[in-house]
Amino acid sequence: MTRPLAVGVAGLGTVGAGVLGLLRQNAEIVGARAGRRIAVTAVSSRDRTRDRGISLDGLRWYDDPVALANDPGIDVVVETIGGSEGPARALMQAALAAGKPVVTANKALLAIHGAELAELAARSNAPLAFEAAVAGGIPAIKAIREGLAGNRITRVTGILNGTCNYILTQMRERGREFAEALSEAQKLGYAEADPTFDVDGIDAAHKLAILAALAFGRPVDFDAVHVEGIRAVSALDIRLAEELGYRIKLLGIASCSEAGVETRVHPCMVPVAHPIATVDGVFNAVVAEGDHVGRVVLVGRGAGAGPTASAVVSDLIDIARGRHTPVWGAESFSALPSVGMERHSGAYYLRLMVVDRPGVIADVTGALRDAGISLESMLQRGRAPGEAVPVVLTTHESREVAMREAIARIAALDAVLEPPALIRIETP
Amino acid sequence: MTRPLAVGVAGLGTVGAGVLGLLRQNAEIVGARAGRRIAVTAVSSRDRTRDRGISLDGLRWYDDPVALANDPGIDVVVETIGGSEGPARALMQAALAAGKPVVTANKALLAIHGAELAELAARSNAPLAFEAAVAGGIPAIKAIREGLAGNRITRVTGILNGTCNYILTQMRERGREFAEALSEAQKLGYAEADPTFDVDGIDAAHKLAILAALAFGRPVDFDAVHVEGIRAVSALDIRLAEELGYRIKLLGIASCSEAGVETRVHPCMVPVAHPIATVDGVFNAVVAEGDHVGRVVLVGRGAGAGPTASAVVSDLIDIARGRHTPVWGAESFSALPSVGMERHSGAYYLRLMVVDRPGVIADVTGALRDAGISLESMLQRGRAPGEAVPVVLTTHESREVAMREAIARIAALDAVLEPPALIRIETP
Repeated sequence: MTRPLAVGVAGLGTVGAGVLGLLRQNAEIVGARAGRRIAVTAVSSRDRTRDRGISLDGLRWYDDPVALANDPGIDVVVETIGGSEGPARALMQAALAAGKPVVTANKALLAIHGAELAELAARSNAPLAFEAAVAGGIPAIKAIREGLAGNRITRVTGILNGTCNYILTQMRERGREFAEALSEAQKLGYAEADPTFDVDGIDAAHKLAILAALAFGRPVDFDAVHVEGIRAVSALDIRLAEELGYRIKLLGIASCSEAGVETRVHPCMVPVAHPIATVDGVFNAVVAEGDHVGRVVLVGRGAGAGPTASAVVSDLIDIARGRHTPVWGAESFSALPSVGMERHSGAYYLRLMVVDRPGVIADVTGALRDAGISLESMLQRGRAPGEAVPVVLTTHESREVAMREAIARIAALDAVLEPPALIRIETP
Repeated sequence: MTRPLAVGVAGLGTVGAGVLGLLRQNAEIVGARAGRRIAVTAVSSRDRTRDRGISLDGLRWYDDPVALANDPGIDVVVETIGGSEGPARALMQAALAAGKPVVTANKALLAIHGAELAELAARSNAPLAFEAAVAGGIPAIKAIREGLAGNRITRVTGILNGTCNYILTQMRERGREFAEALSEAQKLGYAEADPTFDVDGIDAAHKLAILAALAFGRPVDFDAVHVEGIRAVSALDIRLAEELGYRIKLLGIASCSEAGVETRVHPCMVPVAHPIATVDGVFNAVVAEGDHVGRVVLVGRGAGAGPTASAVVSDLIDIARGRHTPVWGAESFSALPSVGMERHSGAYYLRLMVVDRPGVIADVTGALRDAGISLESMLQRGRAPGEAVPVVLTTHESREVAMREAIARIAALDAVLEPPALIRIETP
């Protein structure tokens, strides 16, 4: 048998320790599938004392991850440090420049510096693998980049952030408001102390930028992603969605038309009967639409030591077997521009809190009519003359700019008491 | 650029013509993802005159598929002839013996002669790829063989036959009996004139045998699969399932325990809330359970020219890129035996038609008690003294042999008017 593939793991948090654990626990199976044993022989971490629940005896230690990458005894570097700058980036640059394969779970780094890293990888012909960066244990990268490679992919949609999906699920199932559901998620370890990256949609946008690059054969373009998080989603809108036959999900949506590539992350109303409407809690989902295959739906755990380690190790097995794919799946084949939300059209849910008095609905619908927006339904909840009541409107396909114009006018009406809640209706 | 990969397509039915069409329509994308163009340059078919809706000008024609395989101008053979014997088998043997890569959609051939073909492929180091053989356009083979390769897989479950799923969906949605739904499916082209392979579960069993080999790292063992089809499923049982919170699906289930590998295809009651309960019509689903990744669910179109061609072309792109995986994903790593249904345990739904008179239920439940079977629920539908009424029983986990013993006794009771309907309850 060939000598083992020697792996250096940089970063010994949950994911790094999970990779060590999996490679030991399933050493025999992994060896059979890889055609040779895969063994971690060196690690890098700042903290040598913390108990990670796993023996680190006999492993070479580096304080500096770049030194780990330069260790000539290391065949592959696994980067689980995280962060789009600093040591993770320096490590990957050093490894790729030296022609050493890199496996990473770092979506932020790939979304922001992926174009530069892909060029480095191409120049030295070193694999840069990142199955763990998107949708955790779901083999979504492999499915899109290889499994559906015969298709012109027109659309990729995903529930890409488990924290948001967990919070939205709790809000629906237990009637919680956002702040309360967030604080519970923090207590349970499903949300960070600083939840910004998750709840403001940034993490999902990193992942969506990567999926869009793979699907449409173009370099990653994170700056083009329109991003809205879930802080403004209310328990009321979740209840009203339910009544209208929808679930509210934070989706990442990348679509491709002749005009260009549109990428956006925002809360969406998804019909309950759609297969991803019932993907709840910490589960993730990726839906790809190809011109020949039609719709393919993938569902699984989006985070955690086990699923992430599963994805990292599948990349290591590919490298051990010599299975190599260009970073974005292809020599770039698309020159399509990115297009912004000002070009977007879609259906909308609009929820207002208005004073229940004659003439208000006429003012609201007048503003929509003036913007050329066609209503699909209108629903006033309850009667309370002179007091605040919710009014819900859904529209047929409308232009985003027209909608924003109408909302500005509606928000300025005296009888409209809160900023209007706008949620886009999607059928992925 | 490298010269194009020259493909010979044997068989010009729906799938073969679909592959030609896809490679032409998406030539540029496929070329970018494959790193070189992929072009069909020769075909083999008995019928030179039939209109396939696609130009065959300039292609070399062979009447004999073995001659196509031996054409030195052909780099890869795509086999879409079908059938487990005859020309398809001869073609694959000839190509693999000559070290020529083969891509096939032929599940019957792989299920029955896969062990022999895999040995041939290994000896000559020729890729034998078959993404299209299981679950159509869903990249299930790649997901299990590569994407989840770090896991000890404990269970793979699938809706693997679109014809059966279509018929069961029609029976549920439109209250049809099996015979009626089958004849409608035949009229619409969703079922063959001779539906045996589909409705008796044989096609699903072929696919399950392949999935089990991949998941558990052992040669394919079709003979070990327990197979029951859907002919005995009645509209009444579908209605009663609904009332109990289940859907009836024909599932293929492969599971692995210390005792060995159990593979079975039969109608199942699946809880409505399970993600595959709502996979309806011609859609397929594959659920894999890994020790680190947890549960991964894949859903998509299981048949048709587009999805099947998508799978075939993804294999061709792998071959063009030099991405190579052993046929069963690994050097065989498992020596576990196959175990038969006599070793199975599970929960059961049992529906009887009995004469509504005192003492009958006591006789039935007595037979179950004597066999050591513990009831979970019992439900008599309606009252009609002296006439036939359905009685439904569900059990806790019980041994299959005990259940069969009890049913034999129950079927022999005077008051039991029809052969009992037995459906296993599963939570994949």
